[in-house]
Amino acid sequence: METDGSNVVGGDEIQELKSKIKLQGEKVRALKSLKTDQGTVDAEIATLLDLKKQLASITGEDGSAKSKSKFTLKTPKGTRDYNEKEMAIREKVFSTIVSVFKKHGAVTIDTPVFELKEILSGKYGEDSKLIYDLDDQGGEKCSLRYDLTVPFARFLAMNGSQYQSIKRYQIAKVYRRDQPAMTKGRMREFYQCDFDIAGVYDPMIADSEVVKIMCECLTALDIGEYIVKINHRKILDGIFQICGVPDSSIRPISSAVDKLDKLPWEDVKKEMTEEKGLDPNIADRIGEYVKLKGNKELVDKLFLDQSLISNNNAKAGLNDMVLLFKYLEIFGVLDKISFDLSLARGLDYYTGIIYEAVTEQSGPPKSKDGNQMVRKTKKDSDELDETTVGVGSIAAGGRYDNLVGMFASNKKGNIPCVGVSIGVERVFSILLQKVSLEQVKANEVEVYVMAVADGLLEDRMKICSELWDAGIKAEFMYKNKPKLQPQFSVCDRDQIPFAVIIGRDELNRGEVRIKDMRSKEQGEGGGASIKRSDMVNELKKRLGKA
Amino acid sequence: METDGSNVVGGDEIQELKSKIKLQGEKVRALKSLKTDQGTVDAEIATLLDLKKQLASITGEDGSAKSKSKFTLKTPKGTRDYNEKEMAIREKVFSTIVSVFKKHGAVTIDTPVFELKEILSGKYGEDSKLIYDLDDQGGEKCSLRYDLTVPFARFLAMNGSQYQSIKRYQIAKVYRRDQPAMTKGRMREFYQCDFDIAGVYDPMIADSEVVKIMCECLTALDIGEYIVKINHRKILDGIFQICGVPDSSIRPISSAVDKLDKLPWEDVKKEMTEEKGLDPNIADRIGEYVKLKGNKELVDKLFLDQSLISNNNAKAGLNDMVLLFKYLEIFGVLDKISFDLSLARGLDYYTGIIYEAVTEQSGPPKSKDGNQMVRKTKKDSDELDETTVGVGSIAAGGRYDNLVGMFASNKKGNIPCVGVSIGVERVFSILLQKVSLEQVKANEVEVYVMAVADGLLEDRMKICSELWDAGIKAEFMYKNKPKLQPQFSVCDRDQIPFAVIIGRDELNRGEVRIKDMRSKEQGEGGGASIKRSDMVNELKKRLGKA
Repeated sequence: METDGSNVVGGDEIQELKSKIKLQGEKVRALKSLKTDQGTVDAEIATLLDLKKQLASITGEDGSAKSKSKFTLKTPKGTRDYNEKEMAIREKVFSTIVSVFKKHGAVTIDTPVFELKEILSGKYGEDSKLIYDLDDQGGEKCSLRYDLTVPFARFLAMNGSQYQSIKRYQIAKVYRRDQPAMTKGRMREFYQCDFDIAGVYDPMIADSEVVKIMCECLTALDIGEYIVKINHRKILDGIFQICGVPDSSIRPISSAVDKLDKLPWEDVKKEMTEEKGLDPNIADRIGEYVKLKGNKELVDKLFLDQSLISNNNAKAGLNDMVLLFKYLEIFGVLDKISFDLSLARGLDYYTGIIYEAVTEQSGPPKSKDGNQMVRKTKKDSDELDETTVGVGSIAAGGRYDNLVGMFASNKKGNIPCVGVSIGVERVFSILLQKVSLEQVKANEVEVYVMAVADGLLEDRMKICSELWDAGIKAEFMYKNKPKLQPQFSVCDRDQIPFAVIIGRDELNRGEVRIKDMRSKEQGEGGGASIKRSDMVNELKKRLGKA
Repeated sequence: METDGSNVVGGDEIQELKSKIKLQGEKVRALKSLKTDQGTVDAEIATLLDLKKQLASITGEDGSAKSKSKFTLKTPKGTRDYNEKEMAIREKVFSTIVSVFKKHGAVTIDTPVFELKEILSGKYGEDSKLIYDLDDQGGEKCSLRYDLTVPFARFLAMNGSQYQSIKRYQIAKVYRRDQPAMTKGRMREFYQCDFDIAGVYDPMIADSEVVKIMCECLTALDIGEYIVKINHRKILDGIFQICGVPDSSIRPISSAVDKLDKLPWEDVKKEMTEEKGLDPNIADRIGEYVKLKGNKELVDKLFLDQSLISNNNAKAGLNDMVLLFKYLEIFGVLDKISFDLSLARGLDYYTGIIYEAVTEQSGPPKSKDGNQMVRKTKKDSDELDETTVGVGSIAAGGRYDNLVGMFASNKKGNIPCVGVSIGVERVFSILLQKVSLEQVKANEVEVYVMAVADGLLEDRMKICSELWDAGIKAEFMYKNKPKLQPQFSVCDRDQIPFAVIIGRDELNRGEVRIKDMRSKEQGEGGGASIKRSDMVNELKKRLGKA
């Protein structure tokens, strides 16, 4: 069939691509001459090659437009397919996480993939520009969801009277118009996996259970050692206040502090002072605090800081931390916890404790003294070398007490929440480095029904049908007269444990053979003959289903 | 917190709405005066009422803009949330279906929620106008997927060399800019649940297995009696050809025939002749064929129709039907099958057998002689009364041998396919009529840990933590000193089968009580005291986990 007219490439498109390629080439040359770090240059070169490939795909060998173009066979930028083996791993990850959530009494809800645009507005600070809008076709301005937290808050505000308390999880795709860097797992479409507890409770109990759940998930996922950095928005705010940060600058300064896991202190200070106009002395006072990290002892130590403890925010935050450490000790996860005053988290809506889990693979490499804050990239420049950052944090969250209230019509409609998001995409990246995709068994077939000669299609169908009706996972080859070897090859390829082998003579005697395909010694002729009428029971026994 | 400025309603918006309301009112009056059919008028009135509601929501009682507007708290038109009890039912439906698919060796893949617009173009015939576009922000024109079949074909064409054969299922949301009629389950966002077999095989074997799978799913879902209507595109094409339909009119005429399950023959004939210019005599000849339905005997009877059998298309189709009936008999599902020459299916891409499962609840009511074709609506008009149509077909599919080829760069890249889509949204509607949502247990908590006095928060936490570590689903109340009765109420509300009850004295003796909450006779004081150290094992035994 013909593709429709809109797919025929015009000369305009070719000219546009050619001029893009020219500009990109100049950019690469400029970056090289400026001795920009290799990661940045490589990324720009990749873009250049991509443009050249696009041009080649729509032009003939002589550079003119192809007379009849085919589709560009690809998924949209920043998206990808997942094949059956990748999906087998994903589903294992999801079911591992869901079983932890359910152990803690969680339920799931479902919300639409897009929301009214106004619902998302004003929730994501500087990142709002990444929101993906739908074409205005239906009389409503809609955007693809940016995360699962804001839709959950909207859901609670809409149904508040029924949900004074809920533990809910949701695993679903979210959308960001980010520049895709696929190898690092950052995409425009990706899964989020959220667990949140909503409701008014006594302090820090739900918060502690969320941290416990995060630890249970990461441990069950078997992704190696990890550490959970914890801080408290009120402690941070208190620090900013006693250091002399004007109230209006607290969120921008906080967002600068948040970059300390990727940037050296000098860069963060520069952002605070040069970009955000903070007095350098104030920045230095902040610097003294945010380099602190430790555990319960750090909480005790901060209680001795008279200037800090005189600030109501800081004091309230520290009181929370006392409870948190007590409860996390009961829950048996204290060894995973690091109280880290440099953790700030980018999102605006957090109001209480905040946390972020980092694996050994996901943090930037440490300098010899173990202090990430003064890390320099190779070539000793001040620029961030993203190629060394790894896959980033693997789980993060915090308390957000006012988000639901932003949607509610009155104060009574507010519901405080605390939650965590497991970075499943990063979990996949880590797991994919550990397994060989070829060895993943994607289908779950238990029995392959094959004939030694004559095809015997109808007999194979009949036997398969019996097995299906008995709940046994079974397949046969869709050929009238398949050869024996290809049937054996399917068993090998799909790691099918058992074969039912039939021949004309055996069928006439009312018998079939069952062969354990994992033991090769019997050869193609092997397998135990049993009565056809015992076949289902024998297979159930061997499969542990009896 | 304040909503951001963009949410404050200005006078412009009010004026715009008012003029829209005026125009819409005029439209309704005009349609009424033209005696347009009631369905159309009702739809326009609904739009008018919606506009008036919008205006009311942003203006005060005096009609002026509210000084500070709140968000419109809703999901976008045609979308909705699903709460935890609805989701519990959905997940049960999904897992029932997936276990049937897996029994037949299926794997799953994942594709993006949006595709390049050109991928979807020219695949859906008249329905292409329902495709939902994304805003052009990323330099690519993208659309939300309209179904899961076209993305699957695109996936196969992209990865063809690895997928000469695959049985894949995919359960995911699709999008159509339809006018929502929520009560009938037609939404702009809804789930599809597809199973397809791709590959070159001997005739009708895979086709028969797909029909078998459809029957297994519908039987397992327990939605009542159903029947599978089957037809063949080549038989239909042959009929059209021998009746004298010009080749260029075959698809439009076929799409008219497809409406026979909803419209009386007179209306369909009118569409063929008046709208599509067919000779009334030709239409009448078609009418004789498409009223035929039956089973294997009908196949035999058609073989005796010399004029039909002289047509190569019809003959090839009938040969397929012979094989199909033979294989479906082996698979034990013949009693579900009706060979129905009026079944045409709307989509362009089918090339072989087509089928559609209908439940007793989903067809239009039959007239006394059982003939749907002559059914008239109430008021004795020729109009379709949609309110009597019920939830429609619950599963449908067919063979599509050329769709993958539309994406492939050469003929070798084509892969023939046959598949089925289970109408899960309709299955939900049917199941929701059968169960009371209140009685659905959404969470899976097995044990509630409660204290009789003193709160004992830390002890409750410690016990819960032990249970979690042992894989037992457990909760406790997030209060320092909860009263006993509210704790019991939670067990009742969430149908939690067991409680671990602790008191200061018992803990000092190293004991806890385990109470079966489903037996009320013991009263609040009941439950067996056991050693704290035996608690986990005892609970595992009672929960059947030992």
